[in-house]
Amino acid sequence: MMMANEPANTTDIPLTRAATREAYEALIAHVREASLLGSTGSLLSWDQETLMPPAATAHRAQQLALIAKLVHQRVTDPRLGDWLACCEADSELVTAPHSVVATNVRELRRGYDRATRLPVKLVEALSRSVSLGRESWKAARAARQFATFAPALRELVDLQREKAACYGWAAGGEAWDALAEGYEPGSTAAAIEAVFEPLRARLVPLIERLLGSTTRPSAQFKQRVLPQDGQRRFVERVLRAFGFDFTRGRLDLSTHPFCGGTHCNDVRMTTRFGDADFPDKALGSSMHECGHGLYEQGLLAEHIGTPMGSAISLGIHESQSRMWENQVGRSAGFWTWARPLMVATFGSTVDDLQAAEMYAGANQVARSPIRVEADEATYNLHVMLRFALERALIAGTLAVDDLPQAWNERMRRDLDVTVTDDAEGCLQDIHWSMGLFGYFPTYTLGNLYAAQFFDAAQTELGDLQADFREGRFMPLREWLRERIHVHGRRYRAAELCTLVTHRPLSSDPLLAHLERKLLPLYGL
Amino acid sequence: MMMANEPANTTDIPLTRAATREAYEALIAHVREASLLGSTGSLLSWDQETLMPPAATAHRAQQLALIAKLVHQRVTDPRLGDWLACCEADSELVTAPHSVVATNVRELRRGYDRATRLPVKLVEALSRSVSLGRESWKAARAARQFATFAPALRELVDLQREKAACYGWAAGGEAWDALAEGYEPGSTAAAIEAVFEPLRARLVPLIERLLGSTTRPSAQFKQRVLPQDGQRRFVERVLRAFGFDFTRGRLDLSTHPFCGGTHCNDVRMTTRFGDADFPDKALGSSMHECGHGLYEQGLLAEHIGTPMGSAISLGIHESQSRMWENQVGRSAGFWTWARPLMVATFGSTVDDLQAAEMYAGANQVARSPIRVEADEATYNLHVMLRFALERALIAGTLAVDDLPQAWNERMRRDLDVTVTDDAEGCLQDIHWSMGLFGYFPTYTLGNLYAAQFFDAAQTELGDLQADFREGRFMPLREWLRERIHVHGRRYRAAELCTLVTHRPLSSDPLLAHLERKLLPLYGL
Repeated sequence: MMMANEPANTTDIPLTRAATREAYEALIAHVREASLLGSTGSLLSWDQETLMPPAATAHRAQQLALIAKLVHQRVTDPRLGDWLACCEADSELVTAPHSVVATNVRELRRGYDRATRLPVKLVEALSRSVSLGRESWKAARAARQFATFAPALRELVDLQREKAACYGWAAGGEAWDALAEGYEPGSTAAAIEAVFEPLRARLVPLIERLLGSTTRPSAQFKQRVLPQDGQRRFVERVLRAFGFDFTRGRLDLSTHPFCGGTHCNDVRMTTRFGDADFPDKALGSSMHECGHGLYEQGLLAEHIGTPMGSAISLGIHESQSRMWENQVGRSAGFWTWARPLMVATFGSTVDDLQAAEMYAGANQVARSPIRVEADEATYNLHVMLRFALERALIAGTLAVDDLPQAWNERMRRDLDVTVTDDAEGCLQDIHWSMGLFGYFPTYTLGNLYAAQFFDAAQTELGDLQADFREGRFMPLREWLRERIHVHGRRYRAAELCTLVTHRPLSSDPLLAHLERKLLPLYGL
Repeated sequence: MMMANEPANTTDIPLTRAATREAYEALIAHVREASLLGSTGSLLSWDQETLMPPAATAHRAQQLALIAKLVHQRVTDPRLGDWLACCEADSELVTAPHSVVATNVRELRRGYDRATRLPVKLVEALSRSVSLGRESWKAARAARQFATFAPALRELVDLQREKAACYGWAAGGEAWDALAEGYEPGSTAAAIEAVFEPLRARLVPLIERLLGSTTRPSAQFKQRVLPQDGQRRFVERVLRAFGFDFTRGRLDLSTHPFCGGTHCNDVRMTTRFGDADFPDKALGSSMHECGHGLYEQGLLAEHIGTPMGSAISLGIHESQSRMWENQVGRSAGFWTWARPLMVATFGSTVDDLQAAEMYAGANQVARSPIRVEADEATYNLHVMLRFALERALIAGTLAVDDLPQAWNERMRRDLDVTVTDDAEGCLQDIHWSMGLFGYFPTYTLGNLYAAQFFDAAQTELGDLQADFREGRFMPLREWLRERIHVHGRRYRAAELCTLVTHRPLSSDPLLAHLERKLLPLYGL
């Protein structure tokens, strides 16, 4: 398979009719301009999270609302529908469904239909419900009382169901699918469940075995307090080694790490430096964002502003961040390479630790009620819980008022964790308050894709741990670039997975990865 | 005079007719949106100069061009003309010419007429001439040969003359006036000459006297090499003392210091830290930009996006930057306050210097062929030279090919400087290559206004040097805010000057300031 050799120019199939060519060119020029405008909003958002003076908040909100309005006008412009219909009438598109032209037309059609399918009144109601929802969630979390948030959540769920009804879903599916389509195109609750259930069935006992063991990996490394300027130098060194191009991007500080930016040549990652827990916090989240950043930098400049220059889905995006964070950054090979660099940077604070102890410190498994503090293994149980509950909320089989009880029961069953109050239970995530339903599974889909892609890379590239021990990360980055990044939205996530790994998505690679790594660390 | 007590709400006069009220509201909503959009471009520009990854240049140019296009569409929208005509028909505007409503209508009319008076073909030709001009200027400067730039400059001058003809100018005036109107509304070459000539007549012999003296102020302070992190801390401390509000703005680094931002609550200044020459370079330019920043922070939030929330002119803007840089930052009172802070910051590197020596180091006069390296006194001769030459170029009385000779003769006559080649002569500034004709005089107008405003402040506030010795800078900032900042474009520059200082602009205050300060330092 030589996917990278497929033609990457903008019109790679001959459009037979002059009218189609003209319509296609008008279409692309129009969406590129909308995207260019949207990219100015991306800089405004990045600046708001990193550098903006606090008093500028109100004005920034006005700027962002204006850009959002102008972009919305452009992506719902009826001319888009006309240009698309003209292109779709051309038989060439059918014969070359993965060509640049067919990909752009297919994905723009999908976006246009979704953007125009919601009545203005519903868009406004959704927007209001999110503003109110967020405020209500904040108040409820501060009071540690779900009841405060329940009325807003009821409205949010009702409106999301209404939204799903406008979008519609495939026969045999369910309303939740229509919402997930916004984050993971082509996914369905049933298909996700088919991968999640076997994962959960083996993950719960694996975690029980690990935490039941009398042997524990050394936690010393996590506890070392490292100076922040050293953390920065070390992190930047690692990101350069991973192949992040600092002439085409930046790393800055923010409260919550994220990856944004305006273009493949302007990728903005953020991180944070704390006092302790360096491998998980500063380093782990930097490597995570770097995975996102490498995906963005791997998109092709000539396609930016069109679907061919956009990431496939949140799940595939997350697969890139998780792979660099977990398969690479928490590997024994990585820590063999990184130890001398740690010692050179932090001196006597870490020079009593061997590579094995650093590797152990980066791979601690622990039960926690909080998703964002969870380790590589337990994290997925948190996500699967949310998937099950939001699916039931949207289906109407779980009443909003019953959410805390359902949440706490599931936490006890899957993770053996007793939730002490709603703030560390069902109020811990901001997502639902922002109207993000159908979003959570993409986190675990990312872990699954990461493990399966990594296995495929290893099959093709040979012993990657040997590479990592020598600080050679470029072969993996290039493999990901050629197999995944440069294709933009040419393939759907599931299609890409089969093309790249020669099998459909499965929970086996992730489970095998976790067992291979964690059982020895826990003396099993 | 209680200017600050004039009403500052958006509609401070009763508009008699409902139609006028509606037109005025539509007008203001429209220009506010255009300004909001423009402010997103301001962030893009600021980011480009401070943080943007180098590879993002091409995409940033596209973003900026799109924002410029969308703003231009809005400020030339024919509905603006209709709304303005409707407002202008209301008799209330005539009876209250300095009301918020009348100010906004008058200044928006001015802007609309200028924006719509140029034919599209000329706008395009001007834009092309600037792109080519800049490239040609860069090549000429690198080759140190004016001849390389001459053809591009000829075209630039011709197009500027054409532009001036489209704008038109008042009877008795000249084409140059129409260009200056874009930077210093209401100014004319004749009026500027009437202030510049007496200044030059006394400044040339003053500088001769100073530089002929056998006594020189100590230059030791300028030569000290100070660590850059200390420079940053010291500069931020000074800017805070001057009253710059860091919750409503930032200070960052860039190659060329500037003051930008998006709103009065989001003011972005930049500076640079070098190895030596701290009082002139890092500190001087930071205090300079702080003066601009204080003006921007002093505009009223409720008027942002309208003329009432915009700075009057480049000359008035420059008066604020020059005052904080020169009248405050190069004063004896300032250095009495600042010396202990210098010693606390830099320790033994500066603790042998007394306040008088620091004051002396910040007030060195020297002949230089280069404007941007010139001191407070000689700087104005550089500006007046450019004013005279560009005026002659636009009038057609100086041929482009004769520019180097005219430049070098004038440098010899006014500054006794022999220019060795065109790179340190008429190729040193970027302005003309960017089509900026009519711009240079605003630098010296700024110095003149600064001196005259400062005298008026001193008359009203008492001994400002006594304030500065104690680190009290707030009375001056508040005075400037009340007298100048909050009024936006309520008055034209010349009007404001008379209102605030009770006399028209004169060269006397600046000359008196320079003599008072420099003669003693040179033992005269």
